[in-house]
Amino acid sequence: MKDMMDAVGMSFDDVIEAHDRIAPFIHRTPILTSSYLNERTGAELFFKCENFQKAGAFKVRGASNAVFGLSDADAERGVATHSSGNHALSLSYAAGRRGIPCNVVMPRTAPEAKKAAVRGYGGTITECEPSTSSREAVFAEVHERTGADFVHPYNDPRVIAGQATCSRELLNQVDGLDAVIAPIGGGGMVSGCCLTLSNIAPSVEIYAAEPEQADDAYRSFKAGHIIADDAPVTVADGLKVPLKENTWHFVSNHVTDILTATEQEIIDAMILTWKRMKIVMEPSCAVPLATILKNPEIFRGKRVGVIITGGNVDLETLPWMNS
Amino acid sequence: MKDMMDAVGMSFDDVIEAHDRIAPFIHRTPILTSSYLNERTGAELFFKCENFQKAGAFKVRGASNAVFGLSDADAERGVATHSSGNHALSLSYAAGRRGIPCNVVMPRTAPEAKKAAVRGYGGTITECEPSTSSREAVFAEVHERTGADFVHPYNDPRVIAGQATCSRELLNQVDGLDAVIAPIGGGGMVSGCCLTLSNIAPSVEIYAAEPEQADDAYRSFKAGHIIADDAPVTVADGLKVPLKENTWHFVSNHVTDILTATEQEIIDAMILTWKRMKIVMEPSCAVPLATILKNPEIFRGKRVGVIITGGNVDLETLPWMNS
Repeated sequence: MKDMMDAVGMSFDDVIEAHDRIAPFIHRTPILTSSYLNERTGAELFFKCENFQKAGAFKVRGASNAVFGLSDADAERGVATHSSGNHALSLSYAAGRRGIPCNVVMPRTAPEAKKAAVRGYGGTITECEPSTSSREAVFAEVHERTGADFVHPYNDPRVIAGQATCSRELLNQVDGLDAVIAPIGGGGMVSGCCLTLSNIAPSVEIYAAEPEQADDAYRSFKAGHIIADDAPVTVADGLKVPLKENTWHFVSNHVTDILTATEQEIIDAMILTWKRMKIVMEPSCAVPLATILKNPEIFRGKRVGVIITGGNVDLETLPWMNS
Repeated sequence: MKDMMDAVGMSFDDVIEAHDRIAPFIHRTPILTSSYLNERTGAELFFKCENFQKAGAFKVRGASNAVFGLSDADAERGVATHSSGNHALSLSYAAGRRGIPCNVVMPRTAPEAKKAAVRGYGGTITECEPSTSSREAVFAEVHERTGADFVHPYNDPRVIAGQATCSRELLNQVDGLDAVIAPIGGGGMVSGCCLTLSNIAPSVEIYAAEPEQADDAYRSFKAGHIIADDAPVTVADGLKVPLKENTWHFVSNHVTDILTATEQEIIDAMILTWKRMKIVMEPSCAVPLATILKNPEIFRGKRVGVIITGGNVDLETLPWMNS
């Protein structure tokens, strides 16, 4: 049975197709739990560890779905994108697996670990300034020059369908979830959660977690229309980009609430996770736990899936070294 | 059928009993793999992640076996030990779960993270100088004063039987292993591997990995008798203690070879694991990978279990920060 398509033309069939397409190129990442964090929050937290994912982040799901869905003729011209980091290296990984060129525009301030990984996978980097406007201008030039297929980091339905495979796995791995929480930047992961959960587990609440200093999604959600900041400053470097029409569709229709955390709360949650769970994860991934610790009344007594989105960190410049 | 007992009076039945006794208090830790590290080493590596273990280290297996094996009368007087860190906090954790006192003697130079964890579990710390002689002198005083049951960090058959449950799990989790490698300090984990493997998988090779700067086990192995250093200096702070008679029995009879790595090789392998596998682990845990990278001809084409022994690291003072 073909599911009902929604207003952006997507259905759960897109998720199933994506999952079949990308399965050979991704990990089914494990779920970790922490009795300490359960006790401290009063909730049962199930951490979906996409930091252990291929290329170190969930973004390889959407990137692989786009790359391996191209016709041979389109694939020949390669793919291109702009990205704060993980989408860039995920697209480079996927393009490398298919053996096609990949051009990425990255802010010059992106973590060195991410730039090195892009190059390691065979991607070509063009640097821009760390603002949405500079990024889009530099990208337009690269795109025109190469004629490559543009795989937007989150506003592309192929990418959203790919990211949606993460919450589909989570539902298979954990019974009886009451809520799922993920960090929100451009909204690709959260939109994927919305696409999956609204179709196959509509009673599960969907929370998005955002840095207070890059709270454009929060303000958009409250205002009822997209509000975009040009160059927010936050330690959660993966979450600086604004919502776009496709992700706004999912966020505005299916998200239960958006919660925010301060920079210090994010760093505290990050170091707490490293210390207690012994996993390397990016500052962005700590935003959900920071908001859970800040709003215990929302989560107490619930079974909560927490998406750990990626693990590509510059180990030489950890945020608590300067705090 | 009761297995044959060996020269130190232990049999595989001790491991089965220990496993049944401690199962409620420990995690069955996961196995992680890395296609990058497999490609780089030419081996298939299966990392047994005891850094995700309760109390952050495999040592909780042996400590729990000792604590929960005590009669009620003996348990009342509590337990005591000396330890460079992980045994101290593991024994504190186990004692806390049973609700009995725990006194530990720790070098004043032990990582703050470990001292804080001991106190968090309710253990009482007495500090000593960072040498075997000082540790043993201070402990004698504490032991006499408290009358507690002495749970040696590795020379105690109850502890060795507990550590042996780790390789028993590993064998259940990974088929067709050719070799197992673990770091060696006092030899508790390696002895546990010997006890399990020599009984139920005698064809599996057993390698021990040691810092070149604390290579007393290596020199003992080559000389055919125990050689003890008093205060070796290495970044692998868990591996500074010497072999004792019970662990020497297992090491001298069942270990295939002992391999060593320099400080820089250990730090390089540590940062490589953090970057590629996204796990927080102690310097000691990097010694096996360092020796595999150094001796590819030994491991190429083999399926190798690698014990990641613990994850209790001072995140504020990571070794590559000073290198």
